[in-house]
Amino acid sequence: MRLGPKDPLSAGAGPEADVVARSRIRLARNLAGFPFVARATDVQRREVVDLVRRAGAACRDSPALEWHPMSQTSAHERQLLVERHLVSRNFASTEIACAVGLSADERLSVMVNEEDHLRIQALAPGFDLRAAMSLASSFDDALGRTVDYAFSPRWGHLTACPTNVGCGIRLSVMVHLPSLKLTGELERVKRAAKDLNLAVRGFYGEGTEAIGSFFQISNQVTLGVSEDDLLEEFADRVVPQIVTYEREARSMLLDRSRLVVEDKVWRAVATLRAARLLTADEALKLLSSLRLGISAGLVSGLTLDRLSSLVVQTQPAHLLSSEPSAKDEQTAKAIRANFLRQALRDVEVG
Amino acid sequence: MRLGPKDPLSAGAGPEADVVARSRIRLARNLAGFPFVARATDVQRREVVDLVRRAGAACRDSPALEWHPMSQTSAHERQLLVERHLVSRNFASTEIACAVGLSADERLSVMVNEEDHLRIQALAPGFDLRAAMSLASSFDDALGRTVDYAFSPRWGHLTACPTNVGCGIRLSVMVHLPSLKLTGELERVKRAAKDLNLAVRGFYGEGTEAIGSFFQISNQVTLGVSEDDLLEEFADRVVPQIVTYEREARSMLLDRSRLVVEDKVWRAVATLRAARLLTADEALKLLSSLRLGISAGLVSGLTLDRLSSLVVQTQPAHLLSSEPSAKDEQTAKAIRANFLRQALRDVEVG
Repeated sequence: MRLGPKDPLSAGAGPEADVVARSRIRLARNLAGFPFVARATDVQRREVVDLVRRAGAACRDSPALEWHPMSQTSAHERQLLVERHLVSRNFASTEIACAVGLSADERLSVMVNEEDHLRIQALAPGFDLRAAMSLASSFDDALGRTVDYAFSPRWGHLTACPTNVGCGIRLSVMVHLPSLKLTGELERVKRAAKDLNLAVRGFYGEGTEAIGSFFQISNQVTLGVSEDDLLEEFADRVVPQIVTYEREARSMLLDRSRLVVEDKVWRAVATLRAARLLTADEALKLLSSLRLGISAGLVSGLTLDRLSSLVVQTQPAHLLSSEPSAKDEQTAKAIRANFLRQALRDVEVG
Repeated sequence: MRLGPKDPLSAGAGPEADVVARSRIRLARNLAGFPFVARATDVQRREVVDLVRRAGAACRDSPALEWHPMSQTSAHERQLLVERHLVSRNFASTEIACAVGLSADERLSVMVNEEDHLRIQALAPGFDLRAAMSLASSFDDALGRTVDYAFSPRWGHLTACPTNVGCGIRLSVMVHLPSLKLTGELERVKRAAKDLNLAVRGFYGEGTEAIGSFFQISNQVTLGVSEDDLLEEFADRVVPQIVTYEREARSMLLDRSRLVVEDKVWRAVATLRAARLLTADEALKLLSSLRLGISAGLVSGLTLDRLSSLVVQTQPAHLLSSEPSAKDEQTAKAIRANFLRQALRDVEVG
């Protein structure tokens, strides 16, 4: 496996990057004629991997995928994949026959034998669900011309978990909501999201915690709705509303409690420049405050895409990629602190 | 009342100031012929105040005391007295007739009608229990020539609480033990102190919490022991041992975990210079790390006595003394942050 030390997705910040860090589409698909992953034999699972791999190679209009059987990836490589949000944590730790296909720019990825035979994922920096949808859909369409999807005319796509039956589409955005958190409105927004049948998850998706005010928000309804319905509801209505809420909270804070924002941002910059030891979680929290500083115009000399890149590069496996001595935890903390101190040399506040 | 905005005790750091911030002697005394404070009438309490005041004025060899009836001190002034450790928190909030006498340098102070009729206190910067004892004792001796102390040939001085019966002396030191805290040895030291019948208390004495690794350590046994016994045991053996422990932990840390100390100190300096809002507790914690930095030779441009002075000046009532607008809590946080940023301009780390 040759996953580089940098996350190519962080090369550009994308639209509405002050609030939406990343957009993601995930399609759940299964192959007709094979039991679902959990009930399949290992022979069948290997067959599915081979079948998808061959079929993927025939999708001429989609980016070429490089395939990595998980059995041949090291623990370090699996962790890199998780940190780049290319595979789920469950997938990274499974022992069954499975593989991941990645396009060179990592915008398109396919997990084979996660919960479903196929999890097609498309990523885009910033708020760009349509670009991601188009990438995922065109691969899905092309693949569907070669393989038989498990599909019911009545229900739509059949999936291992009933929550994905139907279109099998999950749209999600990784949003950064530090202002709503500071004003205390975040809980209200989370409740409203739940009322709209949206899931609000942490930094690494399902079952993970929110760190540094990053939240992954996604649709939960897939039955009886189409791709267009979802784009109209989620991409055109819900996400823009959340973006507006966060921006309103931010300008309200700058207007009425500027010192609170400045205090948070200036402390974060100072700590990032002074610390000699930093855990990945603390780095993420501090970078989150710095992100708010950039969005609020309090920080110069650092762009949002560079910041996103720092978030990935300071995660444990990425740090280890660039510095093999970071295996020991205390050494890793020191290397992380040094790395960030260097990286933020030209940042100016105030 | 004319308590200045600065704590005169912080004018010099005193001996062993890297570990011992302050030494204190407290003598509990009661007047014969009067019920203990809790059982006395208000008329009797006022009589005691007058009697002690007059008797104090006759003590020619001791510093002159300026007397302040607590009924005539404002809430702000009471809080100033507490922050300078000149009166107890209980005394500051009591409604009964009571008064405090203070010498100009505040090294000698006398609370009348705290738990006992008299609580004679002598303070000294750093580790100098003998200087404090001599100051307290000479006032005690002089006063004893004018008033009749409640004294039993069998038990010694009689006090409201049996724990003070006997010599009625409490020796205490305010120690700063950040290294023992960092190495995890602090709990062992606290247990050992308890085995030696010592009390380990927080920053404002009985019933208060330890903030910023400051602990008040004092003897608890007063019955059947003399002033000299206590000085020999506590001042000559116990405190020097604690000083040694802290210094050993500090050099061990600098030797084997230098980064941990540097990380703590550099973060504190950076935060103190960057913060726009600071609570008194956080300021104390950060100044505590800075104190460690000075003691460990990692910080220059700031002396221990100047640091002690900043600790007092950033407490709420002291801040209000220098900036009347600090009444509102949020404003106080901003003023405290500004004040410390200015005060630490010339500090250098590394």
